[in-house]
Amino acid sequence: MEVWIPPLVTVADVPGLLAAMTSLRLVQTVTAGVEPYRPHMPEGAVLCNARGVHDAGTAEWAVGAMIAVLREFPGFVDAQRQGEWTYHHTDVLADSKVLIVGYGSIGAALERRLDGFEVEIVRVARSARDGVHPFDELPALLPDADVVVLLVPATPETAGMSDAGFLARMKDGAVLVNAARGGVVDTDALVSELKTGRLRAALDVTEPEPLPAGHPLWSAPGLLITPHVAGSTPASGRRMLRLMRSQLLRYLSGEQLNNIITDAY
Amino acid sequence: MEVWIPPLVTVADVPGLLAAMTSLRLVQTVTAGVEPYRPHMPEGAVLCNARGVHDAGTAEWAVGAMIAVLREFPGFVDAQRQGEWTYHHTDVLADSKVLIVGYGSIGAALERRLDGFEVEIVRVARSARDGVHPFDELPALLPDADVVVLLVPATPETAGMSDAGFLARMKDGAVLVNAARGGVVDTDALVSELKTGRLRAALDVTEPEPLPAGHPLWSAPGLLITPHVAGSTPASGRRMLRLMRSQLLRYLSGEQLNNIITDAY
Repeated sequence: MEVWIPPLVTVADVPGLLAAMTSLRLVQTVTAGVEPYRPHMPEGAVLCNARGVHDAGTAEWAVGAMIAVLREFPGFVDAQRQGEWTYHHTDVLADSKVLIVGYGSIGAALERRLDGFEVEIVRVARSARDGVHPFDELPALLPDADVVVLLVPATPETAGMSDAGFLARMKDGAVLVNAARGGVVDTDALVSELKTGRLRAALDVTEPEPLPAGHPLWSAPGLLITPHVAGSTPASGRRMLRLMRSQLLRYLSGEQLNNIITDAY
Repeated sequence: MEVWIPPLVTVADVPGLLAAMTSLRLVQTVTAGVEPYRPHMPEGAVLCNARGVHDAGTAEWAVGAMIAVLREFPGFVDAQRQGEWTYHHTDVLADSKVLIVGYGSIGAALERRLDGFEVEIVRVARSARDGVHPFDELPALLPDADVVVLLVPATPETAGMSDAGFLARMKDGAVLVNAARGGVVDTDALVSELKTGRLRAALDVTEPEPLPAGHPLWSAPGLLITPHVAGSTPASGRRMLRLMRSQLLRYLSGEQLNNIITDAY
């Protein structure tokens, strides 16, 4: 077997399997994470991930979620269930400053989507680069943002990064959008800020997850919770097939592959 | 008085007032509609409207509403109120075909916002022009659209235009988004399509309005109702002030005014 596309759920004994594939040239994962394969790649084989496949769904969720919170869709759903017409002015996304924390592939997809909304985008990432601020500038950037979108990977560095101090620096009425991992946010600190009504939030991920019945997040005001569905749409499947097709055609024609994690040695 | 900016709620005896303003040169409304002033404009005075002021809020509502319905936000709000984590795949906006019916100023604002969402836009208006289909091509265009956004003005021609036949042509699972006026849609026909689950919808406007308690729309499935709030945000006020400032500066410096409805005779 020259090309291996491992299944979504990691199989047992990856090192043994990889060692047995003596003609292996390419491992193309269907996930962004490559931890089960990376340490065991045989010499002469390339490891590629599925980076970008979930970007469209996740970035789209983030735009919908921030509009839903700012425009009070959850409250209007409640009124709809009661059969009540509750006309009143709401907040709006237009003219906002949106801070993207963890600016990478999904962040760029989010920025492309926000392009026409008459908002200002500020980018933050672990590694500063042109137009992207480093993490250590966050304390100075947070007080200016109307919407803060978390897109950082789950690492020891990002665990609990959105803690009480981070949240306290956010401006009154600002919206925290978490499309990263639940552990990035200090849940208790967020619940406190939501209960006073000072901040609002949209969470697709929580800590713990799934969120158990009776957890204080469920009843916190100004909050939209979706159950880790941002990437769970047909858009991912379609992009996965497109990526596999393009990678295999590149492999067969000897062209440079995309999403290379570790090159052939 | 050379410039009159009439209040939002039309005052009594507009013809008498206008006739009494003997040095009037400009009437700048704070609304898109100019019906109370247009027939009574004195010779030598220009009438300008506030076209475009509500575009940002309304176009943003439409994007948020279509994502909310496709990504099942109302159902997740219901689950949140019950404290239930209901993970499942949902539909997605990415790769959709969005049909904008009544392509004008708000339609263009919507298209700018949809630009990064990996969707295809199809434009329809009363007057066909380059890239914009005429109304009579709607029967052929509706079956292909995943999302149909109504942005037509309320006129005798558009009253009930989205009737049983129009809805029947929409594809299974498609989403109707009404940001126009309630009377554009045949409410009974829409309720029927929603009840079978064949279509989904987001309505900011209804017929009648406000929607009375017990109306079948309130309990129809696959529907998000907001109470005519699409334009009711601080974005409109900010754009109104910006327009007034720019128009008055143009007037004072003798520059060409924007949004002219009837020129000086």
